[in-house]
Amino acid sequence: MRIALAQMNPTVGDIAGNCAKVLDFLARAKAAGAKLVVFPELSLVGYPAKDLLLKPQFINDNLAALGRIAAQVHGIDAVVGYVDRNAQPVGRPLHNAVALLRDGGIVGRHFKTLLPTYDVFDESRYFEPGPAQAHKNLVRIGDVTCGLSICEDLWNDEKMIPRRLYHQNPIADLHHAGAQLMINASASPFVVGKHEFRLELFSSQARQFGQPLVYVNQVGGNDELVFDGNSVVIDGAGNVMAQGRDFEEDLLVADVPIGRGGAAGGTPAGPMHAPSRGIASIYKALVLGLRDYVRKCGFFSVVVGLSGGIDSALTAALAAAALGCGKVTGVAMPGRFSSEHSVADAKKLAQNLGIAFCLLPINAVHEAYERTLAELFAGRQPDITEENLQARVRGALLMALSNKFGHLLLSTGNKSELAVGYCTLYGDMCGGLAVISDVPKTTVWELARWINQNAGRELIPQSSIDKVPSAELRPNQTDQDTLPPYEILDAILQRYVEEEKGPGEIVAEGYDQQTVSSVIRMIDRSEYKRRQAAPGLKVTSRAFGFGRRMPIAQNYQQSLQDG
Amino acid sequence: MRIALAQMNPTVGDIAGNCAKVLDFLARAKAAGAKLVVFPELSLVGYPAKDLLLKPQFINDNLAALGRIAAQVHGIDAVVGYVDRNAQPVGRPLHNAVALLRDGGIVGRHFKTLLPTYDVFDESRYFEPGPAQAHKNLVRIGDVTCGLSICEDLWNDEKMIPRRLYHQNPIADLHHAGAQLMINASASPFVVGKHEFRLELFSSQARQFGQPLVYVNQVGGNDELVFDGNSVVIDGAGNVMAQGRDFEEDLLVADVPIGRGGAAGGTPAGPMHAPSRGIASIYKALVLGLRDYVRKCGFFSVVVGLSGGIDSALTAALAAAALGCGKVTGVAMPGRFSSEHSVADAKKLAQNLGIAFCLLPINAVHEAYERTLAELFAGRQPDITEENLQARVRGALLMALSNKFGHLLLSTGNKSELAVGYCTLYGDMCGGLAVISDVPKTTVWELARWINQNAGRELIPQSSIDKVPSAELRPNQTDQDTLPPYEILDAILQRYVEEEKGPGEIVAEGYDQQTVSSVIRMIDRSEYKRRQAAPGLKVTSRAFGFGRRMPIAQNYQQSLQDG
Repeated sequence: MRIALAQMNPTVGDIAGNCAKVLDFLARAKAAGAKLVVFPELSLVGYPAKDLLLKPQFINDNLAALGRIAAQVHGIDAVVGYVDRNAQPVGRPLHNAVALLRDGGIVGRHFKTLLPTYDVFDESRYFEPGPAQAHKNLVRIGDVTCGLSICEDLWNDEKMIPRRLYHQNPIADLHHAGAQLMINASASPFVVGKHEFRLELFSSQARQFGQPLVYVNQVGGNDELVFDGNSVVIDGAGNVMAQGRDFEEDLLVADVPIGRGGAAGGTPAGPMHAPSRGIASIYKALVLGLRDYVRKCGFFSVVVGLSGGIDSALTAALAAAALGCGKVTGVAMPGRFSSEHSVADAKKLAQNLGIAFCLLPINAVHEAYERTLAELFAGRQPDITEENLQARVRGALLMALSNKFGHLLLSTGNKSELAVGYCTLYGDMCGGLAVISDVPKTTVWELARWINQNAGRELIPQSSIDKVPSAELRPNQTDQDTLPPYEILDAILQRYVEEEKGPGEIVAEGYDQQTVSSVIRMIDRSEYKRRQAAPGLKVTSRAFGFGRRMPIAQNYQQSLQDG
Repeated sequence: MRIALAQMNPTVGDIAGNCAKVLDFLARAKAAGAKLVVFPELSLVGYPAKDLLLKPQFINDNLAALGRIAAQVHGIDAVVGYVDRNAQPVGRPLHNAVALLRDGGIVGRHFKTLLPTYDVFDESRYFEPGPAQAHKNLVRIGDVTCGLSICEDLWNDEKMIPRRLYHQNPIADLHHAGAQLMINASASPFVVGKHEFRLELFSSQARQFGQPLVYVNQVGGNDELVFDGNSVVIDGAGNVMAQGRDFEEDLLVADVPIGRGGAAGGTPAGPMHAPSRGIASIYKALVLGLRDYVRKCGFFSVVVGLSGGIDSALTAALAAAALGCGKVTGVAMPGRFSSEHSVADAKKLAQNLGIAFCLLPINAVHEAYERTLAELFAGRQPDITEENLQARVRGALLMALSNKFGHLLLSTGNKSELAVGYCTLYGDMCGGLAVISDVPKTTVWELARWINQNAGRELIPQSSIDKVPSAELRPNQTDQDTLPPYEILDAILQRYVEEEKGPGEIVAEGYDQQTVSSVIRMIDRSEYKRRQAAPGLKVTSRAFGFGRRMPIAQNYQQSLQDG
């Protein structure tokens, strides 16, 4: 059966725009001879629409749009994601739904059964799970009995999921009810390594049930989340038969083989794009996330403070890749502790990238602050106050450029800094998007090297990559005056933040006890800064922000011994 | 039966400290001759512990604490809130639990059945609901069969809840299984008017089932949430027989009448404190929330920018009430557009409150910024950029004081401003706590008048209450140059934000179409500012912050016609 996988990039809340996109994909799928076109989860409203879902009018608007689309479906079937109302008088008022559209009307519906509530997901906030009556989610398309499912419905496989969160397995139920083909509409955000896991999971289930799978994922950036696309067709033997593009819209048309055995001779059923992996996938995710955040927020250009260091260089390089060099302005703001090379490296970066560059020394403002505060601070030693002040002058200058010229300000802090609070609130943390705030420092270096290698020339100055990291806020300062080496810091971070290991466990892995305690203390105490941080693009399994919800006023004392 | 209601103020995550508090209340309850002492929901870890719950060691620590407490329970029964592990291999890994402790051990457990996932609640993120087997949640205490329940378990009453979110009603189930007395351990945050609703709800259920209720609520501020306490005993006829203090710790000891009929002659079973209502309750909530945030974050003093206006005056007055006037520093920061009365009113406020005062004119820094930016901005008209710059100079000066002297900076914006974005990110939005960011401007005035009336003297200068609101960031500016009158703005806000009404519905109520559209547009477009705002104390049914989760990069176009 020829199926089109409409891997679209919706804008959250833009029902009219998403509707137009659906109709465009529909026409192209029909032109390609597809019998069925499948759209991602909640394609009409975009994922995640969050508390827009609490507006009754928003739900009405989305239902009206579904009706308008249905009226235009002829000569092809379409599976479209939308929000339905729960017709029952008790229970949460909405369903996360897909409709099967045919001959100008709605001929079938499926309500998502498994609702994720971990990490960045909040689906129980809005949705009532669909009833676990698998036969109701079977639809006949041509000669084939298809099982409809939505994203998480696929993610409760006994063989692949170490701790299953749900008591049902809708995929097994659909199989037992007679499904010959599994259709899954998804909005599964990017995390490095996740698509590899998806392929294993999907293959496992396809093999287990002898049931091919059509998996259609959303693509595009929505606030913190970047959806990688990577839609696939898996045959009944667990082989990948078609693989969509990653990190861009795609209409993947495939002749899906039905039946347990898989396709004869493993002939691809459609295009087979190689999915990006590792550093390349992080790069693509950041570029797409940045581009879409700027675009979907209604901006056209960005401004970045350039310190001559690696973080701001990487951020500027990503911005130039995402928006084009003509849309990026870099600003060097040397202060009294700035090194000679800071402005030179910033200038060189701007030249390499071809972005606009300007120079705004902070000394005059810095001194004016000092004079204003001199009387009040008389007799007190310089401390973090004076360091923060310089960062805040820079933040205010960048915001002035943002306000005056309409550029979105990008902040440039990495995950390691944000974790331990090695950053200044209302200073270098200023900005509308924290592009690399989920990228650990060691990965920042990897990305920078990868970018130069990939470009075949020095985009990010080698000196920015090689120099000893410093905030340059006091004489001869380096990051390692305050922090352990980044290799150590990032390893502890990974274990504490991503893996939820306690200090005892981390020390047992061979890390120095005092270092572990001090890093954990810094992380815990910096929660108040992160609460006021700009949204950052999620690329790891646990990013700061929406998927990590920590109290600020708390006093958990973690001992090295387990309780 | 004599029961002690241990209305305690835990610190989130501070298991050792909370444990010590439990033991202290336990001893006092025993000394008062109570047969049973009941603690609030999750009393060992504090509510809400949020993602601390994802740390396996945190769960272990809390279980160990429960064991230590159990070992010390003799001669009295105790119901204590804690986190249990889900012993089943499938399902979310934790339970929101209470244990019945007796004779040095754990003799009963109840797992919360109804898990709220709306507004500020995220319980499905962590917990598996308890099984709906009511008889398992019955415990025998003395001669009485008691039903154990936790907070939301009470909140699914058919008569009182317009749209029931859950299919079960654990309270009815417990009644049918033979409960003679309902015990409810709660952590129910303050919202103005909520305790009045609680009393109606509790009475309704007690009457319906002829079953008295012992309701023990947490008290204290935890980040955005303020728990009001207000623990009560309701008899089987629905009468309030004892009422604990509001907004402070309390051990409420009551001789609870068992049986359908209610207490003979309505004799109170214990103390009957009158719960605060309306403005008085908002005042108490803000004072407690502010005090606890400062204290639980490890600060001892605060700094507030004083503009001479009503918002900063109210914030300073609340701070003085919460912490004592010796712990508050007010800073006037006049600029070139500041009125004569701004400094005079700020000074007068400081005198009235007895707080420290200092003066830091912003002109020198402001001019230094202008010189620094002059070349870049040449030929461009002054706009919002120049206004924001002044606010940012003030923000940086206040942060310098915070850094240098260890004061927590309080921000002073109200809900109306934050709603429409009439505030400067990294300027007046700087601060660790936004004390009145859930208080609409019209309520700000009410609170200010109430404070003066309650004090019997002018604490907040009458001129600050009476003056025309202005940000004083350009010549002769007033808030109403940009915004509709606050009475109108707040009415629209209430409907749009708290009641989720669409523009069509609001216009249908008689509000001007253009005003409604423009206010809604301002609200929607300011999401990016609120994302970076300091936590604010929730007092309304829908506060910005954790309980309102809006996408930033979105494009929902709301028409006046319903879809």
